[in-house]
Amino acid sequence: MLPVALDCMGGDNAPREIVAGAVAAFREHDVPLVLVGPARRIRGLLAEHGMAGQIPIVHTDESLDMDEGALASWRKPRSTVAIACELIKHGKAGALVSAGSTAGVVATSAVRLKTAVGIMRPAIAVTLPTRPRPTVLLDAGATADAKPEMLVQFAMLGTAFAQIRLDVPHPRVGLLTIGAEAGKGNKLSKKAQELLSAAPIEFAGNVEGHDLLRGRVDVIVTDGFTGNIALKTMEGTIRVAVNELRAALTGSRTAKIGAALQRKELQALTARFDSETYGGGVLLGLNGAVVIAHGAAGARGIAAACKLGYDLSVGGLTERVKDQLHAATKPSRFSRRHPADPVGGPPAGG
Amino acid sequence: MLPVALDCMGGDNAPREIVAGAVAAFREHDVPLVLVGPARRIRGLLAEHGMAGQIPIVHTDESLDMDEGALASWRKPRSTVAIACELIKHGKAGALVSAGSTAGVVATSAVRLKTAVGIMRPAIAVTLPTRPRPTVLLDAGATADAKPEMLVQFAMLGTAFAQIRLDVPHPRVGLLTIGAEAGKGNKLSKKAQELLSAAPIEFAGNVEGHDLLRGRVDVIVTDGFTGNIALKTMEGTIRVAVNELRAALTGSRTAKIGAALQRKELQALTARFDSETYGGGVLLGLNGAVVIAHGAAGARGIAAACKLGYDLSVGGLTERVKDQLHAATKPSRFSRRHPADPVGGPPAGG
Repeated sequence: MLPVALDCMGGDNAPREIVAGAVAAFREHDVPLVLVGPARRIRGLLAEHGMAGQIPIVHTDESLDMDEGALASWRKPRSTVAIACELIKHGKAGALVSAGSTAGVVATSAVRLKTAVGIMRPAIAVTLPTRPRPTVLLDAGATADAKPEMLVQFAMLGTAFAQIRLDVPHPRVGLLTIGAEAGKGNKLSKKAQELLSAAPIEFAGNVEGHDLLRGRVDVIVTDGFTGNIALKTMEGTIRVAVNELRAALTGSRTAKIGAALQRKELQALTARFDSETYGGGVLLGLNGAVVIAHGAAGARGIAAACKLGYDLSVGGLTERVKDQLHAATKPSRFSRRHPADPVGGPPAGG
Repeated sequence: MLPVALDCMGGDNAPREIVAGAVAAFREHDVPLVLVGPARRIRGLLAEHGMAGQIPIVHTDESLDMDEGALASWRKPRSTVAIACELIKHGKAGALVSAGSTAGVVATSAVRLKTAVGIMRPAIAVTLPTRPRPTVLLDAGATADAKPEMLVQFAMLGTAFAQIRLDVPHPRVGLLTIGAEAGKGNKLSKKAQELLSAAPIEFAGNVEGHDLLRGRVDVIVTDGFTGNIALKTMEGTIRVAVNELRAALTGSRTAKIGAALQRKELQALTARFDSETYGGGVLLGLNGAVVIAHGAAGARGIAAACKLGYDLSVGGLTERVKDQLHAATKPSRFSRRHPADPVGGPPAGG
């Protein structure tokens, strides 16, 4: 099986924690890896783990800064991320893992890997810590201006992702909109509803903001603007709620005692809804899976990201999407609802 | 001063709690009122409070159902909400308060009151329980497909509202988008940024989802689709967080003790972020303020809504907006950025 290309210079704790994570992934999960970054330095770190020479290294001195924006791909043709993408393109790696700046990683990999055949735009999928099962939300910010057809493709990408990530054979897909009834929403979501009902996926209808954490569906689809705002609103709300509670708990003396008894529970809650824990996002829709680990990820987070990247490439993410697109473009299914002249147009304010 | 027209038949607890709320508003806040609904029944309820004949009543038997949709305005020309709007139109009331279905109230009042001169679309403003000062978020769902110019008008509406509601002379306005830097966002928000910087308001730049509860600005502007999803995500997240915590607290024995000590704090937190507490929304941009109280509102909630409606009409909400629009259309300020041919067009996916 193809190894996972790991960007050793991305993230706040690079390269030390990244390499430590690689070692953990290799030892604990048998993930085949290729490390991309400054060879000598990486070799040294591997040696510290007694792993010198046991994981292949592809050398490059260039790397993306954490504040790197969309121009990264052009400004740094030999960045660790760019090189990792080349490895995938040339069939030397099956997935890319980086804890680098999301904007930089998205821009670079989109330019280098290109979108898969039939996919218009990539989408970032995040796995929300819902109960009893997690929920996949996409797009979390890769495509801010989406067309209805793109949301349908996001639904397919999310379905393929959930099949592998959540091990659900037929993931139920919900459309994030306002008002649960069909026909509610803005122009984009109304058109998307129509197309989604005709798509070869398990469309479960509309979900609203308060359903985000209810685990009612396996996949929640939306445009990158709405998805990013919903996600950050969720994170920010949890943070505020926990802080407020902490404050309240130091209010009365009895409460103080209670607080002491429960610091653990509060921490657990914060942790569970912290993107660092539920672990960054995955850029879907390109020729190769791109796992964007949290910038602050430590060895544990990196190891998990490598495992996920490996699972996605072994699970044949790209092939699954291809199959769905194929099913979707069968005249019998699609042409009815999919006039030659592109549908949708301005989803909002047009 | 003009009285507040109160829909006595809207909400889960109508008419009993509504009339009780009216009595409280009248007694505790000296709010002049006119009650709209079935005269005999209302007279009876007033009598129970020893207030028979002390608050004028305008009779109608028709009222909106709680599941009433956008067609309400046409299907029920004599609904309590429709009659209350007529009172405002004929200068017999200064504001409308209803705990009826949001869709029904919005549709009816939009058709009856019409948007104020120069305002393209109405917006629903909600007051978020941020610290140290609350934050006004609009649009929470009145206009799902907004144009950039509408967001500028929402900013003016929000500014006027915050001046009265939060008593801030120069409210700072933030634009809800993704990525704090200027130029980030989708087409709609990017164009809106441009127009907002030229508008006669205190534009404080972009805010992100996690800033929603940080109280960084006094007013947060967004389209009705995004605003509604952000709001419901916030409410849903708080609910889940508190439930999770409750569950966690019944886990260990020590924790159980802690929980007992703190039920109060948990309840306070839930209450604070419950829309029922921070009290429904206000429909802005029409010829007259429309306060949409929470459907489950009790006497307390209704009294607060009546007080707010009265403050808005006494505070001259409509005039304040007019002044801003006037300032905005001064050639010196605006024409530069505001070509005759409407700017913006399809904000997303176009």
